[in-house]
Amino acid sequence: MERAKIRLCVEHPLGAGQAVPLDPDQAHYLFVVMRLEKGARVALFNGRDGEWTAEVAEAHKKRGILVCVAQAAPQLDPPDLWLIFAPIKKERTDFIVEKATELGCARILPMQSEFTNSARIRQDRLQAHAREAAEQCLGTFVPPVEDLQPLSKLLSGWDTSRRILWADEALVGPAETLASLPPGPWAILIGPEGGFSPSERAKLRDLPFVTPISLGPRILRADTAVCAAITLWQIGIGDWQ
Amino acid sequence: MERAKIRLCVEHPLGAGQAVPLDPDQAHYLFVVMRLEKGARVALFNGRDGEWTAEVAEAHKKRGILVCVAQAAPQLDPPDLWLIFAPIKKERTDFIVEKATELGCARILPMQSEFTNSARIRQDRLQAHAREAAEQCLGTFVPPVEDLQPLSKLLSGWDTSRRILWADEALVGPAETLASLPPGPWAILIGPEGGFSPSERAKLRDLPFVTPISLGPRILRADTAVCAAITLWQIGIGDWQ
Repeated sequence: MERAKIRLCVEHPLGAGQAVPLDPDQAHYLFVVMRLEKGARVALFNGRDGEWTAEVAEAHKKRGILVCVAQAAPQLDPPDLWLIFAPIKKERTDFIVEKATELGCARILPMQSEFTNSARIRQDRLQAHAREAAEQCLGTFVPPVEDLQPLSKLLSGWDTSRRILWADEALVGPAETLASLPPGPWAILIGPEGGFSPSERAKLRDLPFVTPISLGPRILRADTAVCAAITLWQIGIGDWQ
Repeated sequence: MERAKIRLCVEHPLGAGQAVPLDPDQAHYLFVVMRLEKGARVALFNGRDGEWTAEVAEAHKKRGILVCVAQAAPQLDPPDLWLIFAPIKKERTDFIVEKATELGCARILPMQSEFTNSARIRQDRLQAHAREAAEQCLGTFVPPVEDLQPLSKLLSGWDTSRRILWADEALVGPAETLASLPPGPWAILIGPEGGFSPSERAKLRDLPFVTPISLGPRILRADTAVCAAITLWQIGIGDWQ
């Protein structure tokens, strides 16, 4: 069976014969925007049960029911990698959330450092962005996006069994393959444009669970650094191996 | 001497005491938009002579002269890596050119494959985008962006001493570190959304200078694939080693 082209992320459990009620936005999208009719097929995932092909059983403008027919792909969870990043301009922040979802992060933590421009974020909008990224890229997992929190608070309450890979913009030079890092839970830390303040840098250097890395001989924008650091981690000790 | 914050890419040779005339757009930017006055400092690069700190010697609304004071950074050329990609939506095409510049590509070749949406590109606009990316990221090299050409023509005239690393979207699974690839000139080939056609895939598989690679177990958008593939190549056999 060919995989359905339209994909939706839902909350409901998925399984053979399972009926899945749609919320008004989803019904509007499927039956008004995309003009699907009874019997049409849609791909569903919920972050736990893989991808299911489902058939439209009831179609109304603001409600509808899909019925799961068969599993189209198994659940693919990302490795235990978090991303901590400083929100930048709206478009580039959206981009970071999209890329972290695609490249395989399990959780996304926006943080406010001394040089972070944003004092607030629209957490709900960023979460929707992660969901759309998974929908569009055949993903079956949507990383939770947390609310903005100060870096100092994040670090003071940090579970030290999770190591932090710090893309240190002052380390411009050869990068590492990361294959030598210990496996286990990790978080990648990317600073804002302008980097970290001297006191933040001193603190990060002193923390025993923080490993600084270089991302090559060129200066990278924050969003580029996110892509490069996740790629290096995934190929080194993640699930791209 | 601190590096100047405002950076300009110019055509003129740079060297100690060298006077550099500005074109009307650059003069407008420096003296009208940024309101620089005589004696202010600007960073200049031309893709050959590294970065130079230059001082404003003459400032008019539509013309001006800068004089090079001292070299602030040596020339940093990228390794001999080209990027061949299929233009997608405007915003994401801009993004691909920006990221290829930042991550270190020597030449950018937009190509038209069977599933490429764009029949034409604004080559001048993409070239300006590469220049801006270098200006903003402390780069000293701007990769030439070629005009759009059909993939079939590109491959039939290909110098086979340059190997092609093909991010094959059908190879979803473990990626490679690429450290085992032979050094020398390479090009990365990224297809459009929707991938390559069956006949294009058959042709690519048959070419002895084409090496297919996987970019991990998830499907990546074309722009994400560009970032991941360049990162893997750079850490494997490029100048991030």
